[in-house]
Amino acid sequence: MKDVVGSPGTWSSLILRFGQCAFAGASIGVMASALGFSSYTAFCYLIASMGLQALWSFGLACLDVYSLKTKRDLHNPVLVSLFVVGDWVTAVLSFAAACSSAGVIVLFERDVHFCRMYPQFPCSRYELSIVLAFITWSFIGTSSLVMFSLLASL
Amino acid sequence: MKDVVGSPGTWSSLILRFGQCAFAGASIGVMASALGFSSYTAFCYLIASMGLQALWSFGLACLDVYSLKTKRDLHNPVLVSLFVVGDWVTAVLSFAAACSSAGVIVLFERDVHFCRMYPQFPCSRYELSIVLAFITWSFIGTSSLVMFSLLASL
Repeated sequence: MKDVVGSPGTWSSLILRFGQCAFAGASIGVMASALGFSSYTAFCYLIASMGLQALWSFGLACLDVYSLKTKRDLHNPVLVSLFVVGDWVTAVLSFAAACSSAGVIVLFERDVHFCRMYPQFPCSRYELSIVLAFITWSFIGTSSLVMFSLLASL
Repeated sequence: MKDVVGSPGTWSSLILRFGQCAFAGASIGVMASALGFSSYTAFCYLIASMGLQALWSFGLACLDVYSLKTKRDLHNPVLVSLFVVGDWVTAVLSFAAACSSAGVIVLFERDVHFCRMYPQFPCSRYELSIVLAFITWSFIGTSSLVMFSLLASL
C-alpha cells in the first residue's frame, strides 16, 4: 500500500497537493476579482474554505518535499490518522462551499435570470471560481480516499 | 469487521437505513408542502436527491431484513463493492443537494433579507427541510464510511 498513487511522501502525492494549492488559489483569485462577491455569504465562505484548503495542502506539499529529500517514511499510524482527519475535514468544507455557491449561481442564472437582466453582474467570474473549487475538491477527494484506504491497511 | 456497527445484515444497519428513509421522506414532505418551492432549482434538486436516497436506503433496508430473517451473509466482495458505490454516490448527491439549498436559503435570509421582507414566504419550511436533509446525509455518511472500511478489510 505504501507505493499507491497519492500516498504521502511520493511524487504523485506532491503533484496532487500542488494541484490542490494551485486550483484553490486560482478559485480565490477569480472570486476576489469579481465585483460585489462580498455581498453574498456563500461566495465569502468559498474564499474562506479555499484559503483553508490551500494552507493545508501547502503544508502537506512541504512535508512531501521533506520526505522525498530525506527519504523519511511518513507511513506511521499517528501521522496517517492526522492526514485522514485533515483531508476529510477540508474536503467536506470545500465541497460544501462549492455546492452552496453553485446553488446561488444557479438561482441567479436560471431561476431569477439575474445574469441576463444585469450584464454588468460578473456571473461568468463567479462560475469560473466555482468550477475551479470543484476541481480542487476532486483532487482533495482523491487524496482523502487514498489516505483512508491507507489507514485501513496499516 | 463483520460485527461492526452498520455492517450489512445487522440490526444497527437496519436502524441506520430506516433513519435514512424516514428523514429523507420527511425532508421531501416538508419541502413539497412549502409554497413556491418549484420556482427554485436547488429545492427541486433537493427533492429529487432525497427521493433517490429514500429509494436506495429502502432497498438496502429490505436486504437487511432478508439477511436477518434467513441469516444469510452479505459480506462478499461483489455485494459490498456495490453497497460502497451506491452509498457513496447517494451520499455525495444528498450532501450536494443539502449544501446548494442551504446556500440559497442563506442568501434569502441573510444577504437579500427576503424572509424578513415577505413574511408569507415559507422560509422556515425550507430551512426545516434542509436540516432534515443534513440529518439524512449524516446517516448515509456513516453507512458509507462503514462500507468503505469493510471493503478495505475484505
